[in-house]
Amino acid sequence: MQTLEINGRSYRVPDQPTVVVCVDGVDPRYVTDGLARGLLPRIAAMIAGGGEFARATSQMPSFTNPNNLCIVTGVAAAAHGLSGNHALTDDGREVQLDDPAFLRAGTIHAAMHAACVPVLVVTTKAKLRRLLSVGDVPCVSVEGAATQTLGEITDLEQLVGRPAPGIYDWDASHFALELGFALAAVRAPLLMYVSLTDAVQHANAPGEPLSDRYLARLDALIGEYLDAGWRIALVADHGMNDKPEIRYLADALETAGIGGTRVLLPITDPYVAHHAALGSAAWVYAPADQRVRAAAVLAQLPGIEAVLERTRAATELELPADRIGDLVVLADARTALGGRAGDHDLSRLHGPLRSHGGFHEASVPLLLSHAPGALGRRIIDTGARTRDVHAIVLEPA
Amino acid sequence: MQTLEINGRSYRVPDQPTVVVCVDGVDPRYVTDGLARGLLPRIAAMIAGGGEFARATSQMPSFTNPNNLCIVTGVAAAAHGLSGNHALTDDGREVQLDDPAFLRAGTIHAAMHAACVPVLVVTTKAKLRRLLSVGDVPCVSVEGAATQTLGEITDLEQLVGRPAPGIYDWDASHFALELGFALAAVRAPLLMYVSLTDAVQHANAPGEPLSDRYLARLDALIGEYLDAGWRIALVADHGMNDKPEIRYLADALETAGIGGTRVLLPITDPYVAHHAALGSAAWVYAPADQRVRAAAVLAQLPGIEAVLERTRAATELELPADRIGDLVVLADARTALGGRAGDHDLSRLHGPLRSHGGFHEASVPLLLSHAPGALGRRIIDTGARTRDVHAIVLEPA
Repeated sequence: MQTLEINGRSYRVPDQPTVVVCVDGVDPRYVTDGLARGLLPRIAAMIAGGGEFARATSQMPSFTNPNNLCIVTGVAAAAHGLSGNHALTDDGREVQLDDPAFLRAGTIHAAMHAACVPVLVVTTKAKLRRLLSVGDVPCVSVEGAATQTLGEITDLEQLVGRPAPGIYDWDASHFALELGFALAAVRAPLLMYVSLTDAVQHANAPGEPLSDRYLARLDALIGEYLDAGWRIALVADHGMNDKPEIRYLADALETAGIGGTRVLLPITDPYVAHHAALGSAAWVYAPADQRVRAAAVLAQLPGIEAVLERTRAATELELPADRIGDLVVLADARTALGGRAGDHDLSRLHGPLRSHGGFHEASVPLLLSHAPGALGRRIIDTGARTRDVHAIVLEPA
Repeated sequence: MQTLEINGRSYRVPDQPTVVVCVDGVDPRYVTDGLARGLLPRIAAMIAGGGEFARATSQMPSFTNPNNLCIVTGVAAAAHGLSGNHALTDDGREVQLDDPAFLRAGTIHAAMHAACVPVLVVTTKAKLRRLLSVGDVPCVSVEGAATQTLGEITDLEQLVGRPAPGIYDWDASHFALELGFALAAVRAPLLMYVSLTDAVQHANAPGEPLSDRYLARLDALIGEYLDAGWRIALVADHGMNDKPEIRYLADALETAGIGGTRVLLPITDPYVAHHAALGSAAWVYAPADQRVRAAAVLAQLPGIEAVLERTRAATELELPADRIGDLVVLADARTALGGRAGDHDLSRLHGPLRSHGGFHEASVPLLLSHAPGALGRRIIDTGARTRDVHAIVLEPA
């Protein structure tokens, strides 16, 4: 049995088809509620039949890009470089962190691919495709399914048997799983990664009809993978909470008379109808002589849980110090952070604001189809993180 | 609404009957498996109906007495003083930590009782009764139910309607819940604590018939409390794992030629058929000039996860430094620790050895009948511990 060393950790080359699914935004409460109400019969049987329903902890801030990259690299954001979905460059431009040039660690899939292990990645959100395909990893997206090709497969929608839903449709995530399943029948990957979208979770709490519909279909698809003999791990990138309170940090700093500051919201991505760029983490840039005052002003706002200076945030949260703010601001379960009130268009939301980014969305479900080995057991029992998923699933013999 | 300060934390005087149940040894996997297989319909409905199924972390070592006292005092073992079930006194005697003289913090129930709030404690194991009744808290045990009285109630078995089962019977825990329920009808406590026993879990893994029977009856009894309008929290004191491997530390030290050492097993209690005094934590006493060698010998044994010097263990694990060994030894999920092989009578076990005490049994279920408030939410999302249960359930308004 072959073992590969990737970014300082050991992974077994899988001997049976293995898929890790990032169930974007699936807070543990969707799973506990779904199990409690019998919505997840296949996942329930998977747990009862020797699998496991544990918890893992997100990389902070609890956003999509940092955690997807933790999952596929096996290392913290401090090492892989993706501090958020969005960042400020040295020359003051705001950029999406979606370019492989921002990546400071290769992926597990790229290393397996280089070792001639058949791999495949399917992402729902196109924004992740460039990052996940680094190292020539075969990677397709639901958003691009109408036009992308993969080797000799020229029509992904025909392969799945239906047109790809829109990125805000309730079943965009399910199409990703269907696409992975259909592609696997042709390409026979031994290691696959499928990354979903949290559009449903941003607008629907556990128990709401669309959430139930999402979960029931997810469960049925996981059943199809199980029936086909896949080894499966499901993990979320982050949880999700109602955020009825919003604090606009740029407005608060201006009101306090603190000039020269800039607020950057690392949740920012192309999917504004999810969250209007409002999450529970923010970077604040402030001139050196204003930082202490700015931190004091921000810390006193209701719903603010932590205001960490850059070095401390980088150390404690394992973040790349050069890709976060002078101050890292984290909000509580009920509170989202904005820049200026006028810059956020809440009318485009699909419902009341539900979002993530803070400590309260850092507990995520970890579901396994098979019992972990001794190392996996240790990782889970002493606190698994999103970056540990492949180490658990691909534990060396 | 009245608030009491107890051991430095604030608790609301309950305005509706509130019960905390310590589901002794109920590893989270009993709950996930039970939910997955539909064994827990009332608990499932409780979760889906606005309650919560979260996780909490045990006080280390993950034993019964330290965690029961964490639950009822709201503070760590470093503050309440109970480092295990068993300890070595300054004059070299081995004693059970069951005497209130060992307690360094009062209980929440004692403080409520002193403030004229009606409280009641029911423990399955008699060994906990002296500790839990400190401060004149009304407290009865299943083991003593045949002879104990409580105020004007002179026949506890008659009140319940059946004779108390033996302490190793599968439904000893259920009798504790029945006794609490029956006593509550007479005494109308606003705050009740019911502490169960882990006899079933020590001998039966999730999915085994007796475990299923235990869980189904537990679920039905929780349903009775819910129907009667109780606010409920269930938390375990520790998890449980199969321990097919045993390391005998005194034998290993002797083989290595290290003299003058003494191994104390803090799991030791009167219930030897549970575990034969074999758990995954041990205290080792060694002369100062032998400690480094002893630590090196122990650390190299298979299945040993940590050998911590006293001061470091006290700091990192929040333990009272004077009530642990010179060395604190912790074993992995599959390994139990003994003294000398000849001193442990495995023939008295009720089945293959299942036990606890280490990090791998420190993740426990936390089930709530009602959504937590903002503080409770923060505690849960940032890592609840067994000592936080009352702070969550009795959050000040």
